[in-house]
Amino acid sequence: MSRVVPGITPDAPAPSAISNRPEVKRDAHPFSRSQLEGLMTKRFFYIQAFEIYGGVGGLYDYGPTGAALQANIINQWRNHFIIEEEMLELDTTIMTLADVLKTSGHVDKFADWMCKDTKNGEIFRADHLVEGVLEARLEGDKQARAKEAGQAVAVPTEAAGDDKKSKKKKVKSTAVKLEDALVDEYTSTLAQIDNFDGKQLGELIRKYEIRSPESGNEVSEPIEFNLMFESSIGPTGQVKGYLRPETAQGHFVNFQRLLEFNNGRVPFASAQIGKSFRNEISPRAGLLRVREFTMAEIEHFVDPEDKNHERFEEVQSIKVPLLAKDVQESGKTDITVKTIGEAVSAGIIDNETLGYFIGRIYLFLVKIGIDATRLRFRQHMSNEMAHYASDCWDAEIHTSYGWIECVGCADRSAYDLSVHSKKTKKDLVVQKAHKEPKVYDKLVPTIVKKNIGPKFKKDAKIVEEAILEMDQKALADLQSKLKNGAAPLTMCTGQTFELTTDVVTVEMKTIRETVREFTPNVIEPSFGIGRIFYSLLEHSFWCREDDQDRGVLSLPPLVAPIKALIVPISSNEKLTPLVKQVSRKLRSAGVASRVDDSNASIGRRYARNDELGTPFACTLDFASLSKGTMTLRERDSTAQRIGAIDQVIEVIRQLCVGSLDWEGACKVLPEYSGQQDVDA
Amino acid sequence: MSRVVPGITPDAPAPSAISNRPEVKRDAHPFSRSQLEGLMTKRFFYIQAFEIYGGVGGLYDYGPTGAALQANIINQWRNHFIIEEEMLELDTTIMTLADVLKTSGHVDKFADWMCKDTKNGEIFRADHLVEGVLEARLEGDKQARAKEAGQAVAVPTEAAGDDKKSKKKKVKSTAVKLEDALVDEYTSTLAQIDNFDGKQLGELIRKYEIRSPESGNEVSEPIEFNLMFESSIGPTGQVKGYLRPETAQGHFVNFQRLLEFNNGRVPFASAQIGKSFRNEISPRAGLLRVREFTMAEIEHFVDPEDKNHERFEEVQSIKVPLLAKDVQESGKTDITVKTIGEAVSAGIIDNETLGYFIGRIYLFLVKIGIDATRLRFRQHMSNEMAHYASDCWDAEIHTSYGWIECVGCADRSAYDLSVHSKKTKKDLVVQKAHKEPKVYDKLVPTIVKKNIGPKFKKDAKIVEEAILEMDQKALADLQSKLKNGAAPLTMCTGQTFELTTDVVTVEMKTIRETVREFTPNVIEPSFGIGRIFYSLLEHSFWCREDDQDRGVLSLPPLVAPIKALIVPISSNEKLTPLVKQVSRKLRSAGVASRVDDSNASIGRRYARNDELGTPFACTLDFASLSKGTMTLRERDSTAQRIGAIDQVIEVIRQLCVGSLDWEGACKVLPEYSGQQDVDA
Repeated sequence: MSRVVPGITPDAPAPSAISNRPEVKRDAHPFSRSQLEGLMTKRFFYIQAFEIYGGVGGLYDYGPTGAALQANIINQWRNHFIIEEEMLELDTTIMTLADVLKTSGHVDKFADWMCKDTKNGEIFRADHLVEGVLEARLEGDKQARAKEAGQAVAVPTEAAGDDKKSKKKKVKSTAVKLEDALVDEYTSTLAQIDNFDGKQLGELIRKYEIRSPESGNEVSEPIEFNLMFESSIGPTGQVKGYLRPETAQGHFVNFQRLLEFNNGRVPFASAQIGKSFRNEISPRAGLLRVREFTMAEIEHFVDPEDKNHERFEEVQSIKVPLLAKDVQESGKTDITVKTIGEAVSAGIIDNETLGYFIGRIYLFLVKIGIDATRLRFRQHMSNEMAHYASDCWDAEIHTSYGWIECVGCADRSAYDLSVHSKKTKKDLVVQKAHKEPKVYDKLVPTIVKKNIGPKFKKDAKIVEEAILEMDQKALADLQSKLKNGAAPLTMCTGQTFELTTDVVTVEMKTIRETVREFTPNVIEPSFGIGRIFYSLLEHSFWCREDDQDRGVLSLPPLVAPIKALIVPISSNEKLTPLVKQVSRKLRSAGVASRVDDSNASIGRRYARNDELGTPFACTLDFASLSKGTMTLRERDSTAQRIGAIDQVIEVIRQLCVGSLDWEGACKVLPEYSGQQDVDA
Repeated sequence: MSRVVPGITPDAPAPSAISNRPEVKRDAHPFSRSQLEGLMTKRFFYIQAFEIYGGVGGLYDYGPTGAALQANIINQWRNHFIIEEEMLELDTTIMTLADVLKTSGHVDKFADWMCKDTKNGEIFRADHLVEGVLEARLEGDKQARAKEAGQAVAVPTEAAGDDKKSKKKKVKSTAVKLEDALVDEYTSTLAQIDNFDGKQLGELIRKYEIRSPESGNEVSEPIEFNLMFESSIGPTGQVKGYLRPETAQGHFVNFQRLLEFNNGRVPFASAQIGKSFRNEISPRAGLLRVREFTMAEIEHFVDPEDKNHERFEEVQSIKVPLLAKDVQESGKTDITVKTIGEAVSAGIIDNETLGYFIGRIYLFLVKIGIDATRLRFRQHMSNEMAHYASDCWDAEIHTSYGWIECVGCADRSAYDLSVHSKKTKKDLVVQKAHKEPKVYDKLVPTIVKKNIGPKFKKDAKIVEEAILEMDQKALADLQSKLKNGAAPLTMCTGQTFELTTDVVTVEMKTIRETVREFTPNVIEPSFGIGRIFYSLLEHSFWCREDDQDRGVLSLPPLVAPIKALIVPISSNEKLTPLVKQVSRKLRSAGVASRVDDSNASIGRRYARNDELGTPFACTLDFASLSKGTMTLRERDSTAQRIGAIDQVIEVIRQLCVGSLDWEGACKVLPEYSGQQDVDA
């Protein structure tokens, strides 16, 4: 079972400011999350779902700009991974048979601990409750100590939209001094909060007398709450289903078909983009912890004995910021920048295929506009990783919430295919011809079919199965005992059967093996598209130096919802045919554009489109009619150039596909400083 | 509430054979559904979900070819509608608050009738049960009559994969003769089967003594089964949710935001592509009736007083095959071919906007490869349409199952916005400035606030509301009664209040109206992508004249999963670098390609890709190494041409984007008839 919705890891010092941007002063004003959120609503990037019905936590609707941005990110993802690497794309169902998720472990383990206010029934995620209360007590202690020392105390307010911890509902603090030893105990407990199970959380609740923060009532023992949405398939209620918590199982149950499609050969990768669900107990932190989200997952199936990657050399010299497990285990968070090649050679990254995907993930994120200086790959520590996983790295992006896990990249070994194979009794294996046949000796049991039935009757089948499952050591033992007449066979149920040579014999045979059969290992890069989407917005947002209220979203043209704004300088009807013509031409050049012919001033129309992240604006004025020219405005710098209409359109096309940058555009189009320049 | 998964209408004579195809004899063999289905599984277009767990009815997974074909259809849809018409794309949640679907009518009415075998619990859709049993009896009657007349009888077999009625489980027939009157009764009942409600179906079951076909047990009274998948949001169980049965509600609840995004103006359209769900009682008919499916829906919001369309002239001369309601109501199924312009002028299609979309739907379907001769637009009959709808046309595609409703195109009037507005008390209206202010006289009530409270106490509010809701007639009545002293006000609850002039007065006032406020009407084209997908496969499938086992999928390059196959003539390692180079070049030309370097013969590799619908194959041989040439094979004709590698790649690129057709390609590239031509 993969960690579907990646966790939010504690905040760490943010790296230095954004660097890979045009030369515009973007850091004149500190980042304000509430301002960004206001823009998101106002410009309908996304809003809480069912707003007019009061809204539902953890469910968000994407409006035209958000949906287009998301579609563009997904499109880039499809090109970068599926098309570029010839992956096998899947579209499997969201509604998932319960048996499948029982096998995968989700029915038993995909849960959080919750407790209830025993009187008013309010529900808390147990770890969040303990954390919130202890943090509030430590806060109160600080206030009390400051008061004692006669210092002024800044009381944290609920309204602090930029509060780093607003992912959890803040518990109110009161100035009460704690004993020094208790402060240490609380601090140490908070540091390990993610490691406690339900029983331990229950003990902490009793030990520290934690109560429901608002009512002051006692809370119940933590109970497990499975995070899958449950439903029933068909009318009988007998076929149970869950909404998938990840797309991965849809790949695994189709492995045989995929392998056949790939002519029986590994390595190959399947990929899927789609919605998954997680019924959060109390979702917060906006788009970062939601109940319905889009994932993009790759399952790369590989020979466990050969995890090299054919295209490794293409990524080996990419430098990536790594936070390895040994660094974390020594209590530090220092990032080392290494080439992928070095990291794999040094054994920091387990194998080439894992390294290859880390490199490809890095390239993807930077390409769509994630600030490379606010990106790191954090390795899972040994106690964090599933027992079957051999290595796991998360791509974490730094935001105002701290470092956010946006992509998981795990080597899941043969776990998934093995459990499904065992449950369904279907072979989920690859057969690979040896270059030279392998010849070796091996003990082989021979069952005497005609005797075993009469002798063991209804137990004959389980006896036979037990013999066939014996390893070489057990067979050697059986062989020697049979020589002495009889061998007892004890089943795991405790039942014992006496084996004799009339039902089974064991002989050493020479095996000539031409084919090796193995369960492939799976390397799984798993992307949370919503988290990447949100992080990208934070990284893109800034305010004009001269006006803090004028927000800009510096989205790269590659993913910007609208690439070009068309602005007629006035509502004069003479311009209308030209506006339509330019709109049509941009469309046939494959450039998504939008006309703003509202009555607002040109400056306001530009500002509105800065907020939408529209990188270019074409302005049509009366010179457009008389001379056939059009101006081109660049969003970040607000610089304007001028050229013939068709030339400007071609420049925009090239800017959007990335075959030209703004500097290049400036070489083609001369500067413009006419009267409609109202940005200055 | 729209009809989300469109129905399958009874079969009618199929139109004449396919016409708009390259000159290849495609009808040498009759269409075989089972052969197509076999191909779908073998080439992993789609399979029943959870196959290794035994499968679940009505749930299908799309494999690499199916997912790519579906993604290409969706991509064309997005270009054709969203981009071309600047629609506002949405991505709203699948998990839907129950209240929303209560308002829309789905909680109460989105249901089928089912009944149970009273002993073994088997469940039937009531209408399917009655239909199946009566059909079987009529079939038995035919057999008995034939036997009487001494004729040979063809007994229908269950294995008949191409059976037109295999959408319902076939009930076995036994040769029992019926009375003539009963035959007529059964026939008449079957013709009206879609019109019966649960009570009527129950009566039919009793009247005709219909029993569970396999067990012979009695069946229960039909009960309603809601077709939505139900779940619970969050841990308390108090917030009920359903998986959406259509994407439309996500548009309506966001109407205010959309309108604001569009600067407060109509018309505009929102669009959404996504999964919807319908918990079918007993899904059959493959992809045509499923529990989880992809829809693409447009909600076009328009002024009810002006349903003209700005771009109507672009579609008005398109000829479309129409099956109007009056034709159907006279018991016929004759199709009339008319231009959209004629149909709108003649009032056959209600308005320009509806006509515009019918034209656009037609163009879309034909563009992606639907056979235009097997497409019709069927108008809903008066009793078929929801009471609020003013006109509705279904694009129906002819398949081996009969005519399949693939796109619904309805004028839903103001219904959806009105019900949500009423429920949430939010204004879902548009304000439009009059060109000239409208001046008129109107009776206006004036409430005397300071008196009404003390007089009616707790009832004051409902009294006030009742007065404010009065129309002009009621106000005139009130005015005259008040002149005589007092007026009784009777509420719908039966309560009566006495109104006097100290609490309300009514006066004629001159109104100067500058703005008109109205609830926009909605025109909704709603596409079932899976049904279009399946119909397209049927229309594309045929078998080579000389070999019935060699299937071909003649998918247009625009939507084909893979555009070009790359085939090295042998596994000689010298060809490998060239194969990689061609693969890279095709990729950078934006052409999805796939290498087949398996050991199979060239002929077999071509045949495999004919089944995948790959329109072009590039073959690399030793001349490619020495002379830099490559051959190009066209799938349908199996013709081969030759040219320089880069030239062939450019030709393929143009063939894929549609700027060149095969005839044009043949002018550029000379014919090839070398030794690797093993198709002949």
